[in-house]
Amino acid sequence: MDAEKYVYGLLEDARIAGQNLASMDDAGRNILLVRMAAKLEADAQEIVKANALDVDAARAKMTKSELDRLALSPERIKAIASDILAVAKLPDPLKGEESWAVPSGLRIRKVRVPFGVIGVIYENRPNVTIDIASLCLKSGNACLLRGSASALNSNRALIKAISPVLEAAGLKGAVSFVDTPDRKAVDVMMKARGRLDLLIPRGGAGLIAHTIENSRVPVIETGTGNCHVFVDESADLEMAKRIVINAKTQRPSVCNAEEKLLVHRNVANAFIPMMAKALREKGVEIRGCSETLKLVPDAVPAKEGDWPKEYLDLIIAIKVVSGVDEAIAHINKYNSKHTEAIITENRRNAELFTRNVDAAAVMVNASTRFTDGGQFGFGAEVGISTQKLHARGPMGVRELTTYKYIVEGNGQVRG
Amino acid sequence: MDAEKYVYGLLEDARIAGQNLASMDDAGRNILLVRMAAKLEADAQEIVKANALDVDAARAKMTKSELDRLALSPERIKAIASDILAVAKLPDPLKGEESWAVPSGLRIRKVRVPFGVIGVIYENRPNVTIDIASLCLKSGNACLLRGSASALNSNRALIKAISPVLEAAGLKGAVSFVDTPDRKAVDVMMKARGRLDLLIPRGGAGLIAHTIENSRVPVIETGTGNCHVFVDESADLEMAKRIVINAKTQRPSVCNAEEKLLVHRNVANAFIPMMAKALREKGVEIRGCSETLKLVPDAVPAKEGDWPKEYLDLIIAIKVVSGVDEAIAHINKYNSKHTEAIITENRRNAELFTRNVDAAAVMVNASTRFTDGGQFGFGAEVGISTQKLHARGPMGVRELTTYKYIVEGNGQVRG
Repeated sequence: MDAEKYVYGLLEDARIAGQNLASMDDAGRNILLVRMAAKLEADAQEIVKANALDVDAARAKMTKSELDRLALSPERIKAIASDILAVAKLPDPLKGEESWAVPSGLRIRKVRVPFGVIGVIYENRPNVTIDIASLCLKSGNACLLRGSASALNSNRALIKAISPVLEAAGLKGAVSFVDTPDRKAVDVMMKARGRLDLLIPRGGAGLIAHTIENSRVPVIETGTGNCHVFVDESADLEMAKRIVINAKTQRPSVCNAEEKLLVHRNVANAFIPMMAKALREKGVEIRGCSETLKLVPDAVPAKEGDWPKEYLDLIIAIKVVSGVDEAIAHINKYNSKHTEAIITENRRNAELFTRNVDAAAVMVNASTRFTDGGQFGFGAEVGISTQKLHARGPMGVRELTTYKYIVEGNGQVRG
Repeated sequence: MDAEKYVYGLLEDARIAGQNLASMDDAGRNILLVRMAAKLEADAQEIVKANALDVDAARAKMTKSELDRLALSPERIKAIASDILAVAKLPDPLKGEESWAVPSGLRIRKVRVPFGVIGVIYENRPNVTIDIASLCLKSGNACLLRGSASALNSNRALIKAISPVLEAAGLKGAVSFVDTPDRKAVDVMMKARGRLDLLIPRGGAGLIAHTIENSRVPVIETGTGNCHVFVDESADLEMAKRIVINAKTQRPSVCNAEEKLLVHRNVANAFIPMMAKALREKGVEIRGCSETLKLVPDAVPAKEGDWPKEYLDLIIAIKVVSGVDEAIAHINKYNSKHTEAIITENRRNAELFTRNVDAAAVMVNASTRFTDGGQFGFGAEVGISTQKLHARGPMGVRELTTYKYIVEGNGQVRG
């Protein structure tokens, strides 16, 4: 197969569908979503059957929890359909405009518009396919989806189920799907500047680094989280303990989980041994700086390579610092610009920390786990951006839009 | 010289200066700008002397108009200083925040912040050095500037003049300058993801394509304009003529100049011969589609390669179309997403055109030349973005900012 010809063909259909989508209104797009949800439930049996092929093929290669994430059941399809309906209920992300007049007599309107065609490259879980499709449709965008080879049968069945709904509305290709495991197709997507308006990689660090390295299409980097909690000397230590346990252990494999703990020297004696004990009760491995090792002698000595690392596992590294300034400097040196937290009762230190820490989200007296589209009130998220261009932190449907200027005159020319 | 070590050193200073800048308020940044303006005027003689070295060296290689753009005089330095003062008077681009509470009891604030360190690669004119420096400082950003080798002495003298003002404020490196013609320095800038938050290429199509091809730092593409004017059948043809003459000839070398003219078939006879005559009186070469050639027999036949081309010269290509739909389709196929205009008295066609044409700015009954930060009321511009990520069209100081979330709680953990 000629990967370039194939992907460009998909992108051409997507471009036309995107133009049609952009001229629909929010009510029209919501009707599509409602029909898609119904169609998925109606086709649940076929989807589950196709998914079983993927699960069977993966049995030898995947862990039990990976297999669980791959598997679809009628209940899971019902849940996916219900997520689509939740997206349909979100406010119109294309609503709202600013307008002003300028001395030349021109009237300028800044209006929100969809990007056009959004490419998403993602891994494993097939429910992501429908999540992204519905967020893109809600925001008036066509999308080109590239899931993992291990979910190919499942994804194909999901797309097959929703496509008739789109085609009946004259939107063939609005949700385009790269139906081949050929990796060349990904390379073509990354080079398709001018045909693809935005590319979002969702997945492991390797996928994201590869996309940044190779893409000529504008990229939004998502989802790497080397998140810190700094316990200040004025912290309520019981609160700090509760937050660290939650941030580290509630779901250690996600990007907003805590990876590092910084502790003010003046409370190190009081806090670190108690904290280490509580973490170990939850099965967490402790790594520590030299001062931490004095307080927790059987901890693993932390190496330089630990500080920039995202473990995504039941491991934490603890460092004693001299105060808020050292905490900020350490974080800005090693963090991935995702989420950082301070536990403090000192207003001034909270302000210093929130102002000077460079991250998408900075928490005061709350768990890092709250950086999430749902928790922020966005209803759903496409991913969590860790770059600064365009969108930062949880990206909802609003962040899948851009704008254009419409300028109206009555014959103005420039002098 | 080790280019990587050199550029990384500059970026490290810039990063620290950027953190200090970000904690200053608007009044503090404005004082810096006022002092920079005064210092430039005070050092005018030395700057002009350094500039003369560049002008002398370029005499053999440059056209008269290129030499004119390179040359600095005391009057020009006065004008540059006055531009800095105008930037100081702009509203604070970091003002304004949204805040809301969520059911978990957290209070979320979305606050505007600088990017941090912005890299700009640009060509020729030394006044751009100070333009960009003042826009970056106003928006709280440090910058790393890489001008053209042909302006190296001028740029060095400009930076030497303003640096003491920054150093006295504890902002060494806030305006960093790559003081070497070694092209490897540009490669290092493009690979400096994590050290450089944003990269803006300003210059010719070659520079911009090279940056997009090679940069791992997020890029904003600027300044390619294959701009069209579509004359609808209901157009006021006198107005159309006035606008086309202005858009094409007032300053043909800039990105918002018109390159293509599309004419509704029903007014082709009445409009094209008269328009061609007026354009030729201004020295414009006419290229045309086959129907245009029947009306202007001595025009140059337009080739397929003409339609996507940005001439930046006194050349125009004219095409007869069947109506607004064909005009939109042609534009969306060939344009560079910069500025497109329709001349019409038909409300519905104006709406179709503004909604469906994919460009940063869409004009109704006005010259394409109005897509400009000053004309839009932004006071100044860093460039005109032709991509959709982050900023579109004229980028003022506001577009040099991003945001972060500050989340305040009282011990919340996720359930």
